[in-house]
Order: sequence, then structure tokens, then C-alpha cells
Amino acid sequence: MQRTFYRHTSNTLLQGVRQRLGGYGGLGSQRVGFLGALRFASNIPSTQKGVIFYEHGGELHYKDLPVPKPKPNEILVNVKYSGVCHTDLHAWKGDWPLAVKLPLVGGHEGAGVVVAKGENVTNFEIGDYAGIKWLNGSCMSCELCEQGNEPNCEHADLSGYTHDGSFQQYATADAVQAAQIPKGTDLAEIAPILCAGVTVYKALKTADVRPGQWVAISGAAGGLGSLAVQYAKAMGLRVLGIDGGEEKKKLFHDLGGETFIDFTTTKDMVNAIQEATQGGPHGVINVSVSEAAISMSTQYVRPTGSVVLVGLPANAYVKSEVFSQVVKSISIKGSYVGNRADTREAIDFFARGLVKAPIKIIGLSELPEAYKLMEAGKILGRYVVDTEK
Amino acid sequence: MQRTFYRHTSNTLLQGVRQRLGGYGGLGSQRVGFLGALRFASNIPSTQKGVIFYEHGGELHYKDLPVPKPKPNEILVNVKYSGVCHTDLHAWKGDWPLAVKLPLVGGHEGAGVVVAKGENVTNFEIGDYAGIKWLNGSCMSCELCEQGNEPNCEHADLSGYTHDGSFQQYATADAVQAAQIPKGTDLAEIAPILCAGVTVYKALKTADVRPGQWVAISGAAGGLGSLAVQYAKAMGLRVLGIDGGEEKKKLFHDLGGETFIDFTTTKDMVNAIQEATQGGPHGVINVSVSEAAISMSTQYVRPTGSVVLVGLPANAYVKSEVFSQVVKSISIKGSYVGNRADTREAIDFFARGLVKAPIKIIGLSELPEAYKLMEAGKILGRYVVDTEK
Amino acid sequence: MQRTFYRHTSNTLLQGVRQRLGGYGGLGSQRVGFLGALRFASNIPSTQKGVIFYEHGGELHYKDLPVPKPKPNEILVNVKYSGVCHTDLHAWKGDWPLAVKLPLVGGHEGAGVVVAKGENVTNFEIGDYAGIKWLNGSCMSCELCEQGNEPNCEHADLSGYTHDGSFQQYATADAVQAAQIPKGTDLAEIAPILCAGVTVYKALKTADVRPGQWVAISGAAGGLGSLAVQYAKAMGLRVLGIDGGEEKKKLFHDLGGETFIDFTTTKDMVNAIQEATQGGPHGVINVSVSEAAISMSTQYVRPTGSVVLVGLPANAYVKSEVFSQVVKSISIKGSYVGNRADTREAIDFFARGLVKAPIKIIGLSELPEAYKLMEAGKILGRYVVDTEK
Amino acid sequence: MQRTFYRHTSNTLLQGVRQRLGGYGGLGSQRVGFLGALRFASNIPSTQKGVIFYEHGGELHYKDLPVPKPKPNEILVNVKYSGVCHTDLHAWKGDWPLAVKLPLVGGHEGAGVVVAKGENVTNFEIGDYAGIKWLNGSCMSCELCEQGNEPNCEHADLSGYTHDGSFQQYATADAVQAAQIPKGTDLAEIAPILCAGVTVYKALKTADVRPGQWVAISGAAGGLGSLAVQYAKAMGLRVLGIDGGEEKKKLFHDLGGETFIDFTTTKDMVNAIQEATQGGPHGVINVSVSEAAISMSTQYVRPTGSVVLVGLPANAYVKSEVFSQVVKSISIKGSYVGNRADTREAIDFFARGLVKAPIKIIGLSELPEAYKLMEAGKILGRYVVDTEK
Repeated sequence: MQRTFYRHTSNTLLQGVRQRLGGYGGLGSQRVGFLGALRFASNIPSTQKGVIFYEHGGELHYKDLPVPKPKPNEILVNVKYSGVCHTDLHAWKGDWPLAVKLPLVGGHEGAGVVVAKGENVTNFEIGDYAGIKWLNGSCMSCELCEQGNEPNCEHADLSGYTHDGSFQQYATADAVQAAQIPKGTDLAEIAPILCAGVTVYKALKTADVRPGQWVAISGAAGGLGSLAVQYAKAMGLRVLGIDGGEEKKKLFHDLGGETFIDFTTTKDMVNAIQEATQGGPHGVINVSVSEAAISMSTQYVRPTGSVVLVGLPANAYVKSEVFSQVVKSISIKGSYVGNRADTREAIDFFARGLVKAPIKIIGLSELPEAYKLMEAGKILGRYVVDTEK
Repeated sequence: MQRTFYRHTSNTLLQGVRQRLGGYGGLGSQRVGFLGALRFASNIPSTQKGVIFYEHGGELHYKDLPVPKPKPNEILVNVKYSGVCHTDLHAWKGDWPLAVKLPLVGGHEGAGVVVAKGENVTNFEIGDYAGIKWLNGSCMSCELCEQGNEPNCEHADLSGYTHDGSFQQYATADAVQAAQIPKGTDLAEIAPILCAGVTVYKALKTADVRPGQWVAISGAAGGLGSLAVQYAKAMGLRVLGIDGGEEKKKLFHDLGGETFIDFTTTKDMVNAIQEATQGGPHGVINVSVSEAAISMSTQYVRPTGSVVLVGLPANAYVKSEVFSQVVKSISIKGSYVGNRADTREAIDFFARGLVKAPIKIIGLSELPEAYKLMEAGKILGRYVVDTEK
Repeated sequence: MQRTFYRHTSNTLLQGVRQRLGGYGGLGSQRVGFLGALRFASNIPSTQKGVIFYEHGGELHYKDLPVPKPKPNEILVNVKYSGVCHTDLHAWKGDWPLAVKLPLVGGHEGAGVVVAKGENVTNFEIGDYAGIKWLNGSCMSCELCEQGNEPNCEHADLSGYTHDGSFQQYATADAVQAAQIPKGTDLAEIAPILCAGVTVYKALKTADVRPGQWVAISGAAGGLGSLAVQYAKAMGLRVLGIDGGEEKKKLFHDLGGETFIDFTTTKDMVNAIQEATQGGPHGVINVSVSEAAISMSTQYVRPTGSVVLVGLPANAYVKSEVFSQVVKSISIKGSYVGNRADTREAIDFFARGLVKAPIKIIGLSELPEAYKLMEAGKILGRYVVDTEK
Repeated sequence: MQRTFYRHTSNTLLQGVRQRLGGYGGLGSQRVGFLGALRFASNIPSTQKGVIFYEHGGELHYKDLPVPKPKPNEILVNVKYSGVCHTDLHAWKGDWPLAVKLPLVGGHEGAGVVVAKGENVTNFEIGDYAGIKWLNGSCMSCELCEQGNEPNCEHADLSGYTHDGSFQQYATADAVQAAQIPKGTDLAEIAPILCAGVTVYKALKTADVRPGQWVAISGAAGGLGSLAVQYAKAMGLRVLGIDGGEEKKKLFHDLGGETFIDFTTTKDMVNAIQEATQGGPHGVINVSVSEAAISMSTQYVRPTGSVVLVGLPANAYVKSEVFSQVVKSISIKGSYVGNRADTREAIDFFARGLVKAPIKIIGLSELPEAYKLMEAGKILGRYVVDTEK
């Protein structure tokens, strides 16, 4: 989505001067400045480094970009670290059935420090830690927003998709949607929590399983999967992981998983999973986007249980046999990203040390190379860019 | 509280005699008799009329059958009327992936009078009205039963399928599962409520829609559909009906439906339904078993809404696009038949006059002919057999 | 999606002038004006009539007041009608344990037309109908707001209590919280829905009763009660009303109530209510603020049912016997005012003609007199002030 | 509740003989016998040891009692161990407003082995482990039972209260309600789980708190409290404990509790609890039966949170200020004992080693002395009787 950004409403003469100066830069020794209704830190430059592309699949430029200005309801975040997600690849390629802003600065897992805020913002102070997440803002007044389903809002504004994201040193976000990050948090480590963590946490909530019940994670040792295992464990669930190979099995158990089913060595998966869980898991989180794996999950899930779809493959379908789905009374549920509450809760589990995301830090300038690796399927684990490098 | 249970210690000699005689027949003038632990009305014959078949697709015999005897936990119901359901056809043909008892007396919408009860039965008295429904009994002690999901019990015993049903004058049922029917109820009219009514009522509960929200009924003017419209209306929902033709439209509005979408004249169904409901119905009840109609319902349902599967077509699949299901966060839910509570509630709506099922009464002896009509797709509305004819 | 926001860059000089003039008044022939980021109708005066008081229990002045200016997130509503609520009396007296703004313009049931909006406002256009309700605004980013419990926000801003309310011709409200009223609605009749209607509707949701279950309304024929009866009926509930006298009984049945218990003639209330509802109502809405009536409701409510507290008496206590509450597993729930979703839904029931609030219209200038009547307990039904008179 | 027990329905001659022989004893070398429809182990004596009293507060006799016979729906359990609960004291004294059977064998935390079963019993085999719990049986067909609220059934039959309990070597229970205990479980250690464990687990479910939220346990280091702390921890909750003294603080932390508030040293309890939980616990479990402590919990609980009542003091009242309860929208919920599902789940947490109950084993013959200690308030921790001693 493209929006025309505002210009300051008062102190217009000063504003004109500042804008000609091209930034906030000249305010000298002040720690916090006021520019009309805008409150800001004193050391904000007028340009910054970022990675931008101008057409789908086109070149990814690491270059100087102007620092954006927050609207009355927005904060400006000095992004320190930003996670790299598969969605960024889709935004770049433009292969999803959802329109993308062009040109675009991607990124939606940005963790940093608030350096400016609009006059309407009451929930952040300059210097607070904040996160730029997928849902940058929503209308807050439609039927969906009113019920906490902001990610499903027709007017949802998406970081790194319809709103320039966190692959730059300074990014804006609606203050109501921006993630509140506790002071003292490691900003590199929390980056993947802002999307990957929140997403799997939300999926676990959507599965509607209670402490003591079984949840299966299909794709348990991958990036999303390994986070899902940890959240599930912290939520008091019994965790069955599905993935392939001894190394993944070891990782799964290290993360606290209880039972591992190796699809490379198990003949009758449905039977093996149902036996291991005394009747099938009460919920299944399909992190894996394989159509076959998803459809199989409708077979092994426990009667009255929930199969949750969370990955976003293009052009894939879940097929479920109607007779069996009715007689077993199972539900197949789409789970998108988290809302404000889900985000707060997912971060809280992380802040309490119950969830860790193994990351590999690279420089922002190396991001174009990372896209190539991701496209080639060669990225293991979560890359996080350091915007200073 | 003190309870007086039946006593049964005196009839032991007589009991032996009766059992050799093979029936209850000779007890003469007594109104209520005791036979061991069994309590029973005095006028129960030893044989009765019923319709039985010995092999799938084989002849349906209207003939004399022995009157069954209730187990300690069972009641014996003198069935007065029994509805005829499409499921009866599947049981006869044996084309469902669920094993059927053979030989079999079908029928699972039987309404009648309690004439005998086992010694464990405390919730029915001789003379009470009772209903024989699809779920004849379940284990009551597995994890599913414990949570009220008795229809999903692995040991579910099904009337007219794994347990001789209500196409006979005397049928047995587990007292805990048998439907309690208020005295004074029209036993012919309530018959279809015992399966069709409970099933659509349960589906509406499964849709998880609140009063004031929109529910779409796909197949609104058919047998199940017309019941669903009435239940939905009584539950405070706004009802959109989907079906074809002016006659069906009229019926739909007569039943209290608010908006009708005629698939024979509407070009863009998805758009028409979403416009009529300001964004899509919050829930959809797929009474229609058309694969295309079911898949379309995943498109027009409101974001975060529920698509409910309730019909039982053999070999049909629901297909849903994963990307869209995730982004819209919709659920596809299988809904089977109701449990004890659903049954009580569905009957209560009927007893209060809020729901009516148009029926056509035929004799039990005419049932074999009705199977042929049903197989040929020539039955409109609900047939109910009078077991006396 | 591309959004075109208003632009406002050209009026900056004019803005300075207007602000010095202290109003919107001089914009002459324009239909819609732009003042900095503010968008507004052209005919907004700089002063208006309103009722204000300067100290608790002090004189209520009907006088000229400056027209307030909306903040970036606010709308300015030309209030046409405003309901008079008992809460207004508490705000004036200052007898609640909740600090009140002074001086204060009361009123929180204001219905009118949007005449100006701040630059952040996207969900209202000039000319739209809008409602000023009790919850004027909240932080939207605390744990409570995030979960839709905005009325419980520590930073809740309350119309006619901590924020000047609707007893004036022009009032401001946070656009996200302001009620969206469909065009064509009778603004006098909807006024009481904005607080009284939403409050009882929310209470009914809090009672957690399903269509077909019994709800008791204690104080069924009063202002809140008669609304509760209608909402309950529209929600598919069976309604038992408790109040005194034949006239109230008649009103109750006219509104769609099913069973009336007259406390002036019934000896054993608990028994009578339990018999009438076959075991006690599943939920009780205590509109009556009598301590004795509230405590009695904990006795007659059905086991596992809910007693809802909705009135706000000062210094009153609900007493419940612990043993009985545990063994019956009942809940006593406080229900405050509705959130955004509750408001939308309550208005929707009204707009569909399912709920009516009998009102008596008086002039705003007569409001001080109405306070005296209210204080003397002499007001029957709902008063609504016409701000033009 | 008093019930007249049945006598066997067939094999009457044999039955007569057996009854004259006074038991099952003479069946010799068979491992499992059949007596009519009754199935039983071969070594059941005709008399046993038990503790019985004939009037309230009267002498507790440790003496020979006849072994009871299971009804068709019952199992006979050879009780190995039985926990001693404060409720047993109330049953003996008769000081609760709930009628007690006399004479009475108390006890409702009995763990043992199934030695006989009625003909209707399908969920237990001879030799299985089973638990006798407070809810011995219920009607299973009233509105409450149908919804899983069996403990609230009007016809609930209570072990050690209306049905002879587990303070004897052989006790009967409705098979549907009897607890299923995994083979290999330590029968002494599980005894207190059958009532105390299930009760606090149910209370935690009633509190409606999610993993990651705060729950306060008022009385955290006592018998029920220390179980509640462990269940809460296993359910992923953050646990704040309230109790007095350093020793209790240590125990609390050993059990996995996070924050301890010592009422012997804390001046402003409400403030301290709200600070420690960043706004108040989302739920409070009032294990303590102090009226003052319960009422205080309505003050410190988080807005929209739940206060759960679980203890059963006679003649105590919870008092809540209506104004505050409404504005904070809190719920006060009575939580009784668990149903079948709660029991299964509570046992499962125990069986997985997540919950331990420190017990002190005494002989059944020492039980009368234990009652005296309990009456004098001198029992610390949970006593469990060994029925062999």
C-alpha cells in the first residue's frame, strides 16, 4: 500500500528550513528536540544506508536513502538489526497474490531504538526499544480490527511490503502496532522473534490446545519449527516433532521436544504418530509447506483436533476428505501473523529466556548476496543483518 | 436424597419361565412388570414388524422379527414413527468407509414410548417418550466421551448401522444417549429432528457465530437446509440462503431467511454473497455436498470466519488454497452429529414451536419402496414411517 | 492498495490567522475546509451552547462555550441529541471513587454529525453520523487494550467525566472509539443506545448464555432493563423478568419477555424463579442495584451459571456464600461498558429495528432542571436533550 | 445419598449359595470368576477391615465390615491406599449444609486394584488400577451432566459422604466416574491427587489463564497450595505464592514458584502483589479459606481477571465491592471438584512426574487418631492410610 506522508502542521517556517536542510541534523546539542508536534532525538541524520529495489526481481541496491519522517501516529526507529525472512524473497519476486509497493525497502523483523515520534504517540518515549514487524499498521476501526484481528484488516499496512521496512537504518511504524521491546534485550537475537516467533506462537494459540495435550510440529527442526518447539514446550504442551535425519532429531530433543518421528525412516507415518501420541496429536502446526505433509496431517490429527496452516506457499492447496473430516470433526485453520497481544506475549516468552533463535549476523551491505542464497535454498537458520555494516 | 430403585428379587422363578418362552408376552393384566432386574410394561409382544436386510443392496424384508431385550443400561422403545434419512441408504448399500452390522434393521430417527428398561436406568420411566438417534451409545469413559464428544468415540454404537435401529416397532438404546422427548410432543413431527435437526443445530454451534452475525446456508431449501434456516433464525442469526429457483426462494423467506442468493441466476456468486453480507458471512453451513459449492464457500466466507462441513458425501474432498486460508485466517470445520446436550437443545427449540419439519408419513411396510425412490433421487422433503402400518 | 490522504499544505498562512481568530467561523462559502492537517465543515461556529459546572454539586450553567478543536486522532461532532444517564449525576456530585475533570461538560450519549477531523483520522468523513460514548478514548497499546478491554484501560478517557462530553453542541472524541452510526438513523432515538444499550448488550455477552437458554433480568421494566429484555430476545434467549407491578408486567411482555416474576406478590422468589426456568436461569443481569436483589441472584441462578453485575451503586457490596458458590460452581462477573465491537453490534441490533428505547426529548437548556428530577428519583424512562433548544 | 443396592439378577441358585457363604470366597483356584453377569477376581474375601461411624461426631470404629458388591455399572476396588482430607472431617461432624449417609465409611482418595465389575462395565478389566474419588457417580443425563458438569449434578453420589468410601479395603464406584490409573503408578503417592490434585487443577482451569500469564496461589505452601503451585508451573503459568514464613517461602521456590509474598512481613499486600505481577495476577486461586484473604484477592486481581474460590469453609462469605468489580470487570468463580476429563488430565500430569504430593503413610487402624489430630489442626501435609495396617 502506498501512502502519501504528511508534512508538519505548524512551525511552518522552521519546518521549511529543516526540510531544505534535509533532515533533523542541525539541531545541535539538544538531546531531544521538538519540531512542531514532532518529538525527536537530536542526532538523526538526513540520509542513511538501506537496501532498495525498483522492480520485481530487479537489482537490490545498498545505497543512501533519505530518512523517513514519522506521521503523528508513528514512531521513527533507528533499526539496529533486522531478520531476513522468506517473505522478503516473495516481496522481491512479487509472486504472491498481494500487491507490493515499488520501489521497496524490504524487511519486517527490525529491532532498534525510538528516535522520533509523532504528536499522537503516547506509548513510546525517545530511547525506548521498539520492533518493526510485518503488520505496520491497520485501521483499528473495522469489524476485524475491533476484535483484535488487525492482521486481517482490509487496510493492513505491511512492513517491507506496502510500507518501507527494516532493511534500512531508520524506519517508521504505527506506534500502536510497533512492538514494545524491554530495555536490555539483545536486539540481534530478538529480531527473528518479531515475525517468525510471533507467527508460530500465534499458530500454537490457534491450535487451541491446552497444557498437557499433544501438539505435532511438521518441520520441527527448521527455522520456524525450532521456535515452535520451544514455544510449545514453554506453554506446557507435549511436543512431537516431524522432520528428517539424526541431526534434526538431536536438535529437536535439545530444544525440549518429547518425541521425534523421522520421515526418512518411518514407513507408516500416520500410524507412528498416532501411536506415539495415544490417538493422534490434539493439534498440528504445519510449518512445512509441503502439500503432501499438510494433507497427511488431516489424517493423523486426533478426532476433534486442529490442523493449523501457517506457511504461505504460493499456489498450494490443502485437500481434506470430507467424510473423514466430518466423522472425526476436525478443524483446518489458517493462522496468519500475530496481533498486538500475541506480539507482546511472544516477546515476553523470549525475554524470560524460554525461547532462543539461533541467528547468523551479516552486514546490511551483504543482504543482496543473502537473497541469492535464500533463492537457491542455501540458507540454514536465520540470518540477521546488522544495519551498521 | 434417597432413591428407591426397582426391586426384582421375587420373580426369579418366573424369570426362567419367561426366558424360555422367549418374550414378555404372557404377563397379562399387570401394568408394569418386573423380570429379574428388568422393569417393563405389561403389553410387550414377543414379535413385531420390522424391515431388515441381510446383505448390502439386498432385498429389504418387511417381516416379523423378535422384540429385542434391553441390557441393564438400555431402554426398550416402542417406536411409533421413524424418519428416513439418506444415511439409511448408505447403510444399505454399504458404500461408506465404516463397517455396518449385517443383517441390519436400519433407522435412526425413531420416536416412541419407553416400554421396558434395564436395572441401571434411572433417567426414564415406563411410559416416557424417547427418541432413538444415530448415536445409540458410546463408552462414556474415553478422552473424547469425557469432553462431550461422544459421537467421535471409537466405540460409538450407531442406530441403524452397528445396532438395529428404528425401522421396527421395538428398538433398544442406551438410556444415557436416548433422546428425552417431552410428553405431548407429536411423535411423527419430531422424528426428523432426532437426526436432521440435531445435525444442523450442531453445525450452527460449530460455526461459532454469535447472534446478529451472518450465517450462509448452502442448500438452504432442502431437507437439512430448511431446518438449518429455522434454527439459525431462532438463534438470533442473520440468514443468507443459497439455492436455486423461485420456489425455493419463497420457501426460504417463509422460513424466516433474510437474503436469498439464487445460483441459477447469479453470475458472480462470491461477490454477490460478500456484498449481501457486508464482507462475507461469518459462518457457512455446507448442507449441499457439492465439492464445488464447498470449495467456493472457502472463498466467500468472511475473514476469520468458519466454513462448516456437515454432509457426508463418499469420496469427496474439500480443497482450500493455503495462501488465502492463512491470510484470511479462516477455519474449515467438520461437524458430525450432536451429543446429548445438542440433542436436548435441538429438541427444545422444536418443542417451543420455533422449528418445523415438513414430513410425509408412509407405512413401515412401504419403506422398501421409499428406498428405491431415495436411490433414484426422487424423494423431496422428509419421509416418516408409521410403524403400525 | 493505494490510499489518497487529504492534503493540507496550502493553508498554512490562513491557519495562523484562524488560530488567532480562535475559531473556524470565517471560512464562508467553502463546504469543506482545510486548516493545517485539520479537515472540517465550513459552517462551524466559534462558540456554542453547552451545560457546564465548576464544582461538584455546584450550579449547572447553560451558557456559551468555545467550540473545542479535535486533535490529530479526533473527530469533532456536532451533537444533535444526547441521552441523560444516572452516571451524569454521579459525575456532577463527585460521589464515585474515580476522579472527575473540573470544570466539566457532562454527557456521554451524544449522537450527531462529524464536522471536523484530525489528520490521522481515516474512518470518518465529514458529514458521517457519529456517537460520543462513555469511553472517549484509550491508549490502545496496553495489555488490556490489546485484548479488546479498552474500557478497563488505565488511561481510559471518559466522555462527560474526564473529557468534556455531549451536553454541548460540539464535542470531540477519539475517532477509533467514536461510534459509527449508519446514515438515516434517528439521532434522538439512538442516543440512549450509545451507553445504556451498549452496556446491557455487553452484560448479556458477559453472561455467556447461548440462544435457547434462560436469562433473568433483575429490574426488567426500568430504563436499562427494558433494553436488556429486547436485546436478550433478539439474541435468541428466553427472558425472565423480575420487577414489581402489573404495569411493569405488561411492559415486559410487550417487549417480548417470556415469564414475569412480580416481587410485590411472590413469596418465595428463589423457588419461583427456579421453577419457572426449570432449574434457575443460566445467567442473571442485575440491572437493579439493590444489594439484596444482587445477593439473591446468587441463590437462584442455575448451577454453573453466571450472575452479572452491571449497575454502579456507590459503596454497595455483593455477598455470596462461599460453600454454595463453590458447590454450584457459579460465577459473579462485573461487566462494564462495551468496547468498539460491542458498540458496533449493539447499534446494529438497533438499526435493524430489533430494539427500541422509549425517550422523552427536552431542550439542552432544560438539563439543569432534569438533574434535579433525577436527583429526586423522579425521572421515569430516558430523557434525551435536543442541543438546539 | 442413600441407595438400595442390587442383588444379582441371574444364576440365582448359585447366587443364593454364595450369599450364604457370605462372599466370593469359595471360588477356589480360578483367577477370574463369573457370577451371573458379575466378573471378579478369585480371592475376594467376604469381610474386610474398615473404619465406620454411626452418628455425627460419634466413635470411629476400625472393624470388620462386609465386602460390598458392585452394581452392573460399578467396579469393586481393592483399595490399597487412601488419602485423608479435611472433607472427611466435615462428613464425620456433619457440619456442612449437605446431607450425609449414616452409618458411613468415609474416604474419597482411594487408590487400588479392580477386583470385580458389573456386567455393564467395559472400561475396566480385573487387575487394572483404579481410583475412588469424591464424585462416585452421577446421572449422566441431566443438563449439567450432559455438559461435563457432573460434579454439579443434582443426583451426584459422593464417596465417603453419600456412598461408603475408601476407608475400607474394598469399595465400589461407578465405572464411568472411577479414575483410570496407569499401571505402575505408586498407589500411595497418587492417592491425594484423586481429590486434592484434581481440585486444584480444576481451579486452575476455571481461572481461565493462559501460559505466560500470572496466577496467584493464596495459601501456596499448604497441602492444596503446594499442589496448585506445581500444576500451575506445569501449565506454563507464572506463579506468585502468598503464605507466611521463610520455611514456606523456601518450599514454594523448591516447587517451582516464581515470586513469594510473605503476609507476615508485607505491609501493603495489594500493592506488593500488583507490583510483582506488573498489574495484578490474571487469576487467583483461593486455597486459603480466610474470608479476609478472599476479599483481598478481589482487590489485587488484574482487571478482567478471575478470582477462584475453591476451599469449602462453612458459613463464610466472599464480599466484593460492586463498583470496583464492575469497573475492573473481574469475575469471582466457584470451582468445585473436577469431572472425568479433569481427573484424567490431573493424573496424567502426576504420572509424567510433573507433580508430587508429599505424604505421610499411617495404618488404616490409626485413622481414628488422625481425625483427632486433624480436628485439632495438628496435621501438616497429607496423611495417607495403608488399608493393610
